[in-house]
Amino acid sequence: METSLQLIPLLEPIRPEMEQLESLFVEALADVEEPLGSMLRPSLGGGKRLRPALVVLIGRMFDQPAAPFCSLAAAMDMLHTATLIHDDVVDGASLRRGQETLHTLWPAGATVLAGDYLLGQSTSLIADLGHPRIFKLFGTVLRTMCAGEIRQMIVTRGKHRDREDYYRSIEAKTSSLFAASTEMAGILAGAEEPQVMALRRFGRELGMAFQIVDDVLDLTGDEVQLGKPVGSDLRHGLITLPILRYLERAEDDVHVNAILSGRRDEEHVRAAIALVRASGAIEVSLAEARAHARRSQEALAPLPDNTPRQLLYSLAEYVVERKR
Amino acid sequence: METSLQLIPLLEPIRPEMEQLESLFVEALADVEEPLGSMLRPSLGGGKRLRPALVVLIGRMFDQPAAPFCSLAAAMDMLHTATLIHDDVVDGASLRRGQETLHTLWPAGATVLAGDYLLGQSTSLIADLGHPRIFKLFGTVLRTMCAGEIRQMIVTRGKHRDREDYYRSIEAKTSSLFAASTEMAGILAGAEEPQVMALRRFGRELGMAFQIVDDVLDLTGDEVQLGKPVGSDLRHGLITLPILRYLERAEDDVHVNAILSGRRDEEHVRAAIALVRASGAIEVSLAEARAHARRSQEALAPLPDNTPRQLLYSLAEYVVERKR
Repeated sequence: METSLQLIPLLEPIRPEMEQLESLFVEALADVEEPLGSMLRPSLGGGKRLRPALVVLIGRMFDQPAAPFCSLAAAMDMLHTATLIHDDVVDGASLRRGQETLHTLWPAGATVLAGDYLLGQSTSLIADLGHPRIFKLFGTVLRTMCAGEIRQMIVTRGKHRDREDYYRSIEAKTSSLFAASTEMAGILAGAEEPQVMALRRFGRELGMAFQIVDDVLDLTGDEVQLGKPVGSDLRHGLITLPILRYLERAEDDVHVNAILSGRRDEEHVRAAIALVRASGAIEVSLAEARAHARRSQEALAPLPDNTPRQLLYSLAEYVVERKR
Repeated sequence: METSLQLIPLLEPIRPEMEQLESLFVEALADVEEPLGSMLRPSLGGGKRLRPALVVLIGRMFDQPAAPFCSLAAAMDMLHTATLIHDDVVDGASLRRGQETLHTLWPAGATVLAGDYLLGQSTSLIADLGHPRIFKLFGTVLRTMCAGEIRQMIVTRGKHRDREDYYRSIEAKTSSLFAASTEMAGILAGAEEPQVMALRRFGRELGMAFQIVDDVLDLTGDEVQLGKPVGSDLRHGLITLPILRYLERAEDDVHVNAILSGRRDEEHVRAAIALVRASGAIEVSLAEARAHARRSQEALAPLPDNTPRQLLYSLAEYVVERKR
């Protein structure tokens, strides 16, 4: 499988490490009993591998041996995949990265347990690193993500959220994992404390940019490239930044308000998407994403100025320019 | 809440530590946002606290300060509770310890996430202990438990399992957590390696005894004392040791085979329970549980001979004599 690994062009310089990462995934599931292996292999197979790439690049930036950074990268990608598996059960989503989600193929219960298994696998990889501070961050980020998701699901469900609420939510569900990954990589590299904090800030801002762009792409993207229907969030009643920006100017919009009050038929969804797209709300949201990406680039200042740092800088640009 | 803590009489000597454990649960949920706190408090509130008591007693046996053992005990009880929460979603169980299960009160998705949150909390407590080997065991036991549950759910569903299969399954789902708890406590106490292995064996055998008795009580117990209907396992198509022992003598039994082939109406369930009870299969199963309990007592030999060790010895008797 190594030669077929698809990477975004920016990540070609770290292809060897990214291939090592793939082998770790294969290894992790090698002696797993069926059907668990068949359940988990496709889930671990896809994705842009952005979070693991950050970890690998930070190792390179500090001129460290690749192996422990590949393990950390694999652990964080497994944690991420485990939360996606659970989220898809939670949302009842049927497509993820263009593939059918696990719980459409297997009983929901088995899917929950498969996610738990990956959490366990991820914990074991983290344990092997032998850094108590990294363990601790692992537990904290898992809690932060779950608390954020539960809040989004129960507290804000169907309510008209404001932007503060949105920022808080994406910070918990996305940005926290980016920040933990880059912070852990800094700790593993033995970086000075101010550099570790700079790496955390870099990850945090990059994660904010990433999630805002994800939420924009949900409204503007190409279904084939995205691997899921346009407007999925809105259909699930999830109100993201572009919608909030639109509502700030057109708060009595019939279509969006119909969706907010639970009427999510195609007519309202399509009309709402067209209106949001035409309103300039997309551009305003992308400008916010760009501001976060810029702040993530600024955070890199105290770090060693070398090729891996330049790649991290470019990744921040990629995150806002990407189309999927 | 401290004074109202209900303990089995055997555990009265470690009441102070068990109360400290309760405070750790309260603390762990103190700054958790709603509704997560309300969801998790009742789940953490019940139970016999047997696993945590083992950890506390092992700390005492080695004359160690209580605090880290209470943290480990709390972490393992949270891990246990998290897996119960997920199992109840998986099984669709509506009662646990006489209380309505979480997913009957909250959306299933939120329940899954609440379980994840507890896993995160548990990971954080383990991380604070700063022992890489304990952290590693944590990841391993989580994987073992999940793989065991998935196997039980998918591979053996509805099939006529043999005893080997049953032993393997309860080892993964129950015994592994007992064994990990006692092994971790030994490591935390700085015990010699042969003592750590003896503690692991003690936990493993005790866990086997515990689960066999649980499976017997499901058929013979009092609904009020158990907090769930008699024959729950059979109603879910779960074939436990007493049923297997019964089938070894009466393999063409109409009622049990009707249940095995998916017809789980009350008539068959009640008839099957009565037949199994009358057949001597209960006594044979309890004899097996007693043999495991005895082996767990024997495993204690290389450990310091003091009051806590005597309590562990007595707990092995309690586990097979208990009525709930």
